[in-house]
Amino acid sequence: MTPRDLLLSEVDLIAALAREFGPPPPEVVVGIGDDCAAIAQEGGQCLLWTVDTLVEGVHFDLAYMSLEQLGWKSLAVNVSDVAAMGGQPKQALLSLGWPPARDKVLALEFARGLARAGRDFGVTVIGGDTVAAPGGLTVTITLTGVVAAAAMVRRAGAGVGDLIYVTGCLGEAAAGLEILRRGLKPDPSVSAPLIEAHLAPRPQVRAGRLLAEAGLATAMIDLSDGVATDLDHICRASGVAAHLPAASVPVSPLVVAAAPLLQRDPLKLALNGGEDYQLLFTTSRERTGSLETAFARAQLPPPRRLGEIVAGQGVWLLRGEEKFEISGQGFDHFRLDRSTEQI
Amino acid sequence: MTPRDLLLSEVDLIAALAREFGPPPPEVVVGIGDDCAAIAQEGGQCLLWTVDTLVEGVHFDLAYMSLEQLGWKSLAVNVSDVAAMGGQPKQALLSLGWPPARDKVLALEFARGLARAGRDFGVTVIGGDTVAAPGGLTVTITLTGVVAAAAMVRRAGAGVGDLIYVTGCLGEAAAGLEILRRGLKPDPSVSAPLIEAHLAPRPQVRAGRLLAEAGLATAMIDLSDGVATDLDHICRASGVAAHLPAASVPVSPLVVAAAPLLQRDPLKLALNGGEDYQLLFTTSRERTGSLETAFARAQLPPPRRLGEIVAGQGVWLLRGEEKFEISGQGFDHFRLDRSTEQI
Repeated sequence: MTPRDLLLSEVDLIAALAREFGPPPPEVVVGIGDDCAAIAQEGGQCLLWTVDTLVEGVHFDLAYMSLEQLGWKSLAVNVSDVAAMGGQPKQALLSLGWPPARDKVLALEFARGLARAGRDFGVTVIGGDTVAAPGGLTVTITLTGVVAAAAMVRRAGAGVGDLIYVTGCLGEAAAGLEILRRGLKPDPSVSAPLIEAHLAPRPQVRAGRLLAEAGLATAMIDLSDGVATDLDHICRASGVAAHLPAASVPVSPLVVAAAPLLQRDPLKLALNGGEDYQLLFTTSRERTGSLETAFARAQLPPPRRLGEIVAGQGVWLLRGEEKFEISGQGFDHFRLDRSTEQI
Repeated sequence: MTPRDLLLSEVDLIAALAREFGPPPPEVVVGIGDDCAAIAQEGGQCLLWTVDTLVEGVHFDLAYMSLEQLGWKSLAVNVSDVAAMGGQPKQALLSLGWPPARDKVLALEFARGLARAGRDFGVTVIGGDTVAAPGGLTVTITLTGVVAAAAMVRRAGAGVGDLIYVTGCLGEAAAGLEILRRGLKPDPSVSAPLIEAHLAPRPQVRAGRLLAEAGLATAMIDLSDGVATDLDHICRASGVAAHLPAASVPVSPLVVAAAPLLQRDPLKLALNGGEDYQLLFTTSRERTGSLETAFARAQLPPPRRLGEIVAGQGVWLLRGEEKFEISGQGFDHFRLDRSTEQI
């Protein structure tokens, strides 16, 4: 394998970038390779810090999404990264790349959605910049958050025997995107919530904080690129493998209902589809009772058990006696898809 | 004037965005409308925070700039924003939009330049994300810094009678860009430093910290868009006007030397040309002696006096008995130019 071949996967590129930038200073508790960077603060707190870019034609299409919806979602996807560390989001900066030929009054529609998301998530936009972006609208949001250093949950930390959970059912955002892209017209009672799941994902801040503060998660990530990719990140960071029995994957009933029209396998949408923005986490086997009780007390939907952590490498789907590796079958961020990849 | 007309200028758009986002919470000492946002921390410190995006074909052209040079410069322009508040830069996140058709091994050349800038400025890159950007390479850096709250210098603060200074001479980066864009071949003793000024601007962190810590500046900004635009930002934020006698504008002698070949007025390059990344600041008249002594003691080049703050509105060039308004004659960020505009 030549050095060039080594770089074909995004994971290797991230690793190469990390080598180039070198080790972070001691106050940086979490550097490259998690949902947020984390910097130690006074009083046992960590400052969480993340950035995400959404590119027109890659992550969104204004043919089926309003600018106001885009403004809302562009903050939501960052809030989800803070939730994945168990944190509370705080402040944001916006870097808005606006096509010069487009009426800039429309930027206020975008800002209206972003401001509404700010109110929904308790975040204030406190600055940023605007630039010309002739190649298409480009939205970068950078967000801070805060979490107690002792409570923070990382991608690394999953141990052999831990159980794998997700905060909600899977595949809805991917199915919603298919409906929008292909202009399909299923029963609105099915399509409306699926489209909503794609356009207005709900980052799981309360669940993330609960898991962190009660010490219930050994590792955590948000589902931006799909279980196959995001669980692989947990497995790589933790040095373990994952077994997912096909029957226990919590495919959304709405996705099952839409599947014949979409002509897509609902299990594949659930495992490889991105943008569910649920939290995927691991819990020690002996804490599962506490986990279920804590979610019920907090009036959060019960977490769904997806599988378990085993020794080895990779994410494996189990069907009967057979075992298929599905690691990384979500989105690759350098293809023309919706994925972003944390450095 | 219809509401739409009101939005034709970038300044009005920024004001409209600020209204949409509403007032920041009390811990946010500086919100929308300065070089950085500033958040109060424990112990009398402020966390400074900025973001800047560079877009291929707008802010840079890889025909005359290497990826390594781009990596270096993309951190430098953010460091300059922290310098403009009197701060010390700390940590950065990178959001890299990479064209899917381009060999991603080349991203490591970019990373090498960024890492080198990190070492030069004492900044560590601690995370970020990568996305596909079919419209062209798009680089967003977000940077933190730190400054004592009592020392921090803002755009607002210039008072009538204050003198206007700049940390170095003007127009070199704009002349260097002209040479590169038009493929001109002046004497290398002239062209090499001009090209260097464009490709590798030197943010004035030491000068900014000195001005802040010694309480010598009443207002400050970094020169990204040119004096005509950036001084106008100080004037608007401070509710004052500026008078610049033409003879006292510190046009770089190299720009004067290159002017016949460029067929450009050196004074215009100095006032309207962007990307000098010097610091433009105002000082009370009675502190000018202390200012010059402090710069000499710190072995910094002497600051150049450019003009003075007067009552009124706008930036005015004085030539003999005549007075010309030049406010905002730098770059407009929604045209296809190199400018970025802080929100």
